[in-house]
Amino acid sequence: MVEVKKKLKILGEDVLKDINQKKNPDIDIPIRSLSNVIYNEKTKQLTLGNKVSKRYLFNVAHAKRFMQTMLVAALCKELQKENIHTSLRDLFYILKKTLPNSDENTFDEQRESDPIIVDLEVMLGILREQLHLNADVRGRVVGNVVIKDMGDLINLGKLGSGGWAIPSNVEDLTLKRVNAKYILVIEKNAAFERLHEDKFWKKQKCILITTQGQAARGPRRLIQRLSAEYKLPVYVFTDADSYGWYIYSVLKYGSISLAHISERLGCPNAKFIGLTISDIDEFKLEDFTIKTRDVDIKRAREMLKYDWFKHPAWQKELKLMIKRKIKAELEALSGRGLRFMTEVYLPRKIKNKDFLP
Amino acid sequence: MVEVKKKLKILGEDVLKDINQKKNPDIDIPIRSLSNVIYNEKTKQLTLGNKVSKRYLFNVAHAKRFMQTMLVAALCKELQKENIHTSLRDLFYILKKTLPNSDENTFDEQRESDPIIVDLEVMLGILREQLHLNADVRGRVVGNVVIKDMGDLINLGKLGSGGWAIPSNVEDLTLKRVNAKYILVIEKNAAFERLHEDKFWKKQKCILITTQGQAARGPRRLIQRLSAEYKLPVYVFTDADSYGWYIYSVLKYGSISLAHISERLGCPNAKFIGLTISDIDEFKLEDFTIKTRDVDIKRAREMLKYDWFKHPAWQKELKLMIKRKIKAELEALSGRGLRFMTEVYLPRKIKNKDFLP
Repeated sequence: MVEVKKKLKILGEDVLKDINQKKNPDIDIPIRSLSNVIYNEKTKQLTLGNKVSKRYLFNVAHAKRFMQTMLVAALCKELQKENIHTSLRDLFYILKKTLPNSDENTFDEQRESDPIIVDLEVMLGILREQLHLNADVRGRVVGNVVIKDMGDLINLGKLGSGGWAIPSNVEDLTLKRVNAKYILVIEKNAAFERLHEDKFWKKQKCILITTQGQAARGPRRLIQRLSAEYKLPVYVFTDADSYGWYIYSVLKYGSISLAHISERLGCPNAKFIGLTISDIDEFKLEDFTIKTRDVDIKRAREMLKYDWFKHPAWQKELKLMIKRKIKAELEALSGRGLRFMTEVYLPRKIKNKDFLP
Repeated sequence: MVEVKKKLKILGEDVLKDINQKKNPDIDIPIRSLSNVIYNEKTKQLTLGNKVSKRYLFNVAHAKRFMQTMLVAALCKELQKENIHTSLRDLFYILKKTLPNSDENTFDEQRESDPIIVDLEVMLGILREQLHLNADVRGRVVGNVVIKDMGDLINLGKLGSGGWAIPSNVEDLTLKRVNAKYILVIEKNAAFERLHEDKFWKKQKCILITTQGQAARGPRRLIQRLSAEYKLPVYVFTDADSYGWYIYSVLKYGSISLAHISERLGCPNAKFIGLTISDIDEFKLEDFTIKTRDVDIKRAREMLKYDWFKHPAWQKELKLMIKRKIKAELEALSGRGLRFMTEVYLPRKIKNKDFLP
């Protein structure tokens, strides 16, 4: 990671240069709030605009965060040198108390160090994983895929009922062989295990990935890499509710808080395979729906306004949910029979290309 | 699973016999509340006592649950016949609406079906997994272990940075080769990834398992099987707080709610490797502690009274926590340096056999 080391070095040297010239050292931090997030209709990605804020050393309001930024950057350089990875929580503890002969903490809470890591990520145009900072770990994968990781050749189709536990960091692994027609991304473990038991991925020649709720960065990046490097379509399979649909939109377009890395985490070619509210009628799931809570409706109303949910098909589903006040879980398909999902729902959707954009 | 099928058949036949003899059909359900949970000092296990409650068909208070019990048992028989597994949530949906020509649900909520599954588990002396009902999925493992699962031979030491995703059900896998001196069970993913990166399991010849919080049944059973079938000591590594310590006690003794299967999920030979409140002084972690919240203290006071926390060493730690009002996370060790956990803390604890019972 010569590039990462170099960028960190330049950051330090620039500050040092200011100091030597008796200037007030400053760094430029791109703004990451919704006001600077742009939905790019052409690339189908949420991206950051050009607004930047300056952080100065000699400014009472900035001084502490300036110091903290330098501390985080210095630790990242150390991680590169030692070739070691750590977690956000560990980073907080490592930098909590760094002033010698003082009772003063340099970081009081992890919520002070987390945003500074994103600041660095945006400023330097480097993924957090490349800075050797690992995110949450979640997600499993099976399929006809061979990868090379840490010197091991791993066949993701030969891992029994368990599958491969996706690590927080998939930057350094190599995709050696991929034999699949598409990637099926599943919100829930139970549906993943059912599909795996029914050998769905063998019969359908696909890759199964469960995100276990909102996708962590490891699985997002793995899906993006599989899709980009092997030109594979991505079908996303979640509950029929605002939360599930948002999981889909994050996988496809990126998220507001991580808009600066949509390009590396998003899959603009992803399609939504279900569940929709229309599926409830189409597949006779009426008996297996759940009443929405206020928070579901509130979220749906917000999503109606997002540029990346403006497609008429999505407006229709969101409005249907608000009107009928129902939602449905993946498990609702089991109400129609133990193998309904494997043998009826998914094959029919795929055959008819019955996807939402 | 001939035994499972047979037991389910006998249950049905007994009820049928009562009906044919015009008796009021009844089933015996062992009581599972704390009043019927016994701590067995000798086997170091929480077990169920002999108290039993009867459930009758012709009893207004029992009739619905009697019917529900029969529905769940019938579905379990179907799962055996089809050789298919499903989740607790799916089971609820499958059985939600089973009365033809009626708007009445047979189950309104999953919290009605879950306890009936445990009823069956206790009545029949069969693990839920053997009934083909899968629990939550969590947990990862790496180490010098070869298993056979669904026809695949899997080397848990050749899975790159990810590791094997432990499935919800490990009943049918075979442990083919195990080359390790002990099992290290870790509460948190971040510590697991750190230890894995440092090749701790290779250097120390051990197996690393992360539970990702309170252990799900899959990992608990896998730890128990590895330990029992290969006579391996189990060291448990959690945060220094009531929540972490309780994770340890569940792994070792079993839990109150699942006391009927402690024998198959518990590891009486497990030992606690840390963190303790005493470690905070011993390893100079004072700067990296957190203030306890009221709920931590309340939980610690409850645990002081449990028979399985009566050992003086545990009483001391619980009282220290209550007195000093501090706790510490695994990540606190990173405050002492990036490799402090791998190179100092764990090796020293293991060398000195510095464990809590």
